[in-house]
Amino acid sequence: MKHFISMNQLTVEDIYSILSNAEKYRVKEASIPKQLFAGNLFFEPSTRTKMSFIVAERKLGLEVLDFHMESSSVLKGESLYDTAKTFEAIGANLLVIRDASDTWFEELDQKLAIPVINAGAGKEEHPTQCMLDLLTIYQEYGRFRGLNIVIVGDIKHSRVAHSNANALKKLGAKVFLSAAPEFIDEELEFPYITMDQAVELADVVMLLRIQHERHEDKAETNNYLQQYGLTKEREKKMKQAAIIMHPAPINRGIEIDTDLVECSRSRIFKQMENGVYIRMAIIKHVLQEWGIINENTIEKRETTIRNQWNGALRSIN
Amino acid sequence: MKHFISMNQLTVEDIYSILSNAEKYRVKEASIPKQLFAGNLFFEPSTRTKMSFIVAERKLGLEVLDFHMESSSVLKGESLYDTAKTFEAIGANLLVIRDASDTWFEELDQKLAIPVINAGAGKEEHPTQCMLDLLTIYQEYGRFRGLNIVIVGDIKHSRVAHSNANALKKLGAKVFLSAAPEFIDEELEFPYITMDQAVELADVVMLLRIQHERHEDKAETNNYLQQYGLTKEREKKMKQAAIIMHPAPINRGIEIDTDLVECSRSRIFKQMENGVYIRMAIIKHVLQEWGIINENTIEKRETTIRNQWNGALRSIN
Amino acid sequence: MKHFISMNQLTVEDIYSILSNAEKYRVKEASIPKQLFAGNLFFEPSTRTKMSFIVAERKLGLEVLDFHMESSSVLKGESLYDTAKTFEAIGANLLVIRDASDTWFEELDQKLAIPVINAGAGKEEHPTQCMLDLLTIYQEYGRFRGLNIVIVGDIKHSRVAHSNANALKKLGAKVFLSAAPEFIDEELEFPYITMDQAVELADVVMLLRIQHERHEDKAETNNYLQQYGLTKEREKKMKQAAIIMHPAPINRGIEIDTDLVECSRSRIFKQMENGVYIRMAIIKHVLQEWGIINENTIEKRETTIRNQWNGALRSIN
Repeated sequence: MKHFISMNQLTVEDIYSILSNAEKYRVKEASIPKQLFAGNLFFEPSTRTKMSFIVAERKLGLEVLDFHMESSSVLKGESLYDTAKTFEAIGANLLVIRDASDTWFEELDQKLAIPVINAGAGKEEHPTQCMLDLLTIYQEYGRFRGLNIVIVGDIKHSRVAHSNANALKKLGAKVFLSAAPEFIDEELEFPYITMDQAVELADVVMLLRIQHERHEDKAETNNYLQQYGLTKEREKKMKQAAIIMHPAPINRGIEIDTDLVECSRSRIFKQMENGVYIRMAIIKHVLQEWGIINENTIEKRETTIRNQWNGALRSIN
Repeated sequence: MKHFISMNQLTVEDIYSILSNAEKYRVKEASIPKQLFAGNLFFEPSTRTKMSFIVAERKLGLEVLDFHMESSSVLKGESLYDTAKTFEAIGANLLVIRDASDTWFEELDQKLAIPVINAGAGKEEHPTQCMLDLLTIYQEYGRFRGLNIVIVGDIKHSRVAHSNANALKKLGAKVFLSAAPEFIDEELEFPYITMDQAVELADVVMLLRIQHERHEDKAETNNYLQQYGLTKEREKKMKQAAIIMHPAPINRGIEIDTDLVECSRSRIFKQMENGVYIRMAIIKHVLQEWGIINENTIEKRETTIRNQWNGALRSIN
Repeated sequence: MKHFISMNQLTVEDIYSILSNAEKYRVKEASIPKQLFAGNLFFEPSTRTKMSFIVAERKLGLEVLDFHMESSSVLKGESLYDTAKTFEAIGANLLVIRDASDTWFEELDQKLAIPVINAGAGKEEHPTQCMLDLLTIYQEYGRFRGLNIVIVGDIKHSRVAHSNANALKKLGAKVFLSAAPEFIDEELEFPYITMDQAVELADVVMLLRIQHERHEDKAETNNYLQQYGLTKEREKKMKQAAIIMHPAPINRGIEIDTDLVECSRSRIFKQMENGVYIRMAIIKHVLQEWGIINENTIEKRETTIRNQWNGALRSIN
C-alpha cells in the first residue's frame, strides 16, 4: 500500500496491523527523529479531520504545512494536481488531501514521489474515518465477526457509508442500512431495514450526517427525526451493550435527539479521539512503505526522548 | 480560578500574582517540558489577540492548533459547543476562545475537562486585554491606588471598557468615563466627564476603538475627533507623566490624531508587547490550577535548556 | 542590505554570496539555536511563495506566525503599517510581506526595528522569485555572462519580469523580451523579439503567467498559445541545452502547451524547490545584517544537532 486512498486496497492484515499500532499510540508517545513535512491540502471545509491530522502529525514530530485554499493560488485557477506537485517540489514528504471530486486521486497516481493519504474524496471514500470507526468498534467488542451494524441516514451521498459498509463486511460483520427513501443507494448490496427494526437488532447504530439545509421548515425537520432518526424512545429499545456512533458534524435534533449525543451509549467523541491515533498509525504505515522512515525509528526516538529527559531531571534533582 | 473567563472571578491576589509572572516572562525564557496542545478558537476576526496568544503559546513550548472558522465545519452549522468538544476530544489541553456572544462560556461551563481562556466575549468581557492594560499601567506607576484613569470612547459597546473599569476600581484606581452621547452606558456607575476635563485630570487616557463605519462622511468623522477624541491640542494639556493607551486596532484620525499614535506618551505598542507576557502568565496559571503542569515545571525546564545548550557549546568550542 | 526589498539594492557580490549559501542549504541541514519568530504577512493570495517561506523558516528552526488577512483586523480597516508594527510589538524578529501596492515598503522604511523581506510588491518587484530564478539558471550553466534569456508574456504587469530583466543584465546575460502587443512595457529598455525568434535564440525561455481571465472565449485562448505561447512545435526548435522556466501558477494551454510543463527541458518544479534554499539564504543574510544571529551560529547548531543525535543513537545501539 504505497498511498492510503481506498479501504478496498487494504488486506485484512493491513487493517489489523494499523488498528494495533493505533492502540499503541493511545497510551504511549512516539516521534520521528528527522525533520519531515506533511502538507495538508483540504479543498473542502473540515474541523475534525484536518485538526486531528495536525495533532497526529505533531505527535509524530512532523512539521505541518497548512494549506488555505481561500488565500492560495487556487483563486488564480491553479488545479489540485499543480498544487500537489508544488508541495512536493517545496519539500513535503507526505500529502493529506480532501477534495469534492470522487476521483481526484486518479490524476495524481504515478505522478508523485511522495505518499498521499485520502482525507475524503467526494461521495466515494473516506478511509481514515472508516479506520477510526473500526478502531472504536474493536475497542468495544474486540471483534467484528457476527456483529450487527446498522448504518443510518443519507447513505446515497455519504462517503463514510461507502467506505464503512464494505470494510465491515470484509471483516465479518453483518451490515444493514436504514434510510429515508430519498437517501437509499441502490448500488450498495446490503439489506435495508426500518429504524424501529434497527434499534432492536444493532450492536452498533452508526448514524450519518444528513444535509438538513434540504429540509425547508422546522416541522419537516422534526418529522425527519420521528420517522428516520434516533429518538429517545428508540434508544430505550437498543440492546444493553449496543453503542451509538456518528462521524460528525452532528445535526442535533435531526438525525439524533440532542440529549443522546453525550449519553452513555454514545461513542461520538471517542471516535474523534481515536481519529488521532489511527492517523498516527496510517502516517507511520505509509512513511515506512516508502522507506522514508524505517521500522524501528519511532520506537528508538521514543526511548531517546525518555532517556534524555530522565537525564535532565536527574541533573536538576 | 479553573477557567479564565471574567475579571470579576479574580481576587486582588490573583491579579498581582499573574502580573508578577508576566513581568518575569518579559526578561527570561520559559518552556513546558511536555507536549501540550492549545486550541485557538476565534469566531471573530483578530490580529493582535490571536497572534499574541500564538507567540505566548510557542514561547511556553505549547503546540498550536489554529482553527479557521472560514474553512471549518462551522460552515455546515456546527456550534461553538460542538467545536470546543471536538478540540477536547482530539487532544487539546487548553482552549482560547473568542466569540460575538456575551455569554458563550455558559454553555461550556462544567462540560469540559480542560481549561478555557476568554479571548473576547461579545460586548461584555475581554479579561486578557484588561490584564495587559493593568500590566502596562503597573510598569508605569508601580501602583493603581489613587491613579486617575479615564476610559474614552464607545463605552456602551466595548468589552474592554466593561472589564477594565471594574478591575481598576477593585485595585484602588479612580475611574472616569468620557463618551459621545450615543456611546454612554448607563449601567456602568462611574462619573462621566468631557474630553477637555479628561486630559487635565488623567494619569492614564485609555482610548477605545469606535466603529467609524457608522460615521457616514469625512466631515462627521473629523468632527468626532474635535469633539470627543484626543487631538494634538488636548494632548498638550495632559499631565507631564500621563500616558495614552488604546487596545487597537486604532482608527487614526477618529478617536486619536494619527501623529499621537507613536508619540512619547503612547503605550499602544507597549500594550501589545505586554499582551504576550500576560498571556504566558495566564496560560501557566490555568494549567497549574488544573494540575496539567506543576509549580516548578517551567523553571526546571528553563534550567535544563540552558544547561544543555551550554554543554553543547562547550563541546564545540 | 538591512531589508530585502529590491534587486537593485543588491551588489553582484551580494547576489553570489546568497546563491552560494542557497546551494549549501540544498545539501545540508541548518538551524538557528534560539527561538526567533517570523511573521508572514501576505495581503494577496499565494501558495508557492508563502509555503516555501514557511518551509525555509522551519528548516532554519524559526517559529512561524501565519497571518490570515481574511480573519484579521484588516477587516476592521487596520492598515499594512499598523499590522506590521503589531507583529513587531508582539515579538516578530523578521517580517515577510506581500501586498498589491508597488510601494508598500516606503511607509515601513525607518519605522521598524526588524528586517523585512519583500515577497511581492504590486507590479514592480518580486526579488526572492528573481533570486530563485538566478539560482536555477546558475545550476544549469554555472554562469550568466553571454547567456541569451528571453522573458515571455505579460511583461507590462509582471513584477517577475521587472526584477529579473535588470538583475540578469547586471550579471552579464543578454535579455530579450517577447510579448503580445497589449503586454509590451515601453519603459523596459530591452529588445522585443517574436516567439519564433525566441526559441531559436534562447538559452533560457522564461515564461510569465498571463491573466487568462481577460481572454473571453476558448478560441481566443487557443489563439494566444499559437501566436505568443510555447507550443510543442516551437519547443522542438529550441537549442539542445536550452531550458524552460515559469514562476507559476501556470495557465496550462495558454502561455505553454500543457505537455511541456513537465518535459525534460522544464525547470518549473526545480524552481519551486530552489525557492526554499534561496529563501533560507536570504533569511540568514538579513538576520546576520541585523546582528540577530552571528556568522557561525547556524553551522554550530548543525554540528550540535548531529552530535546529539549520534550520541543518542550510540546510547541505544
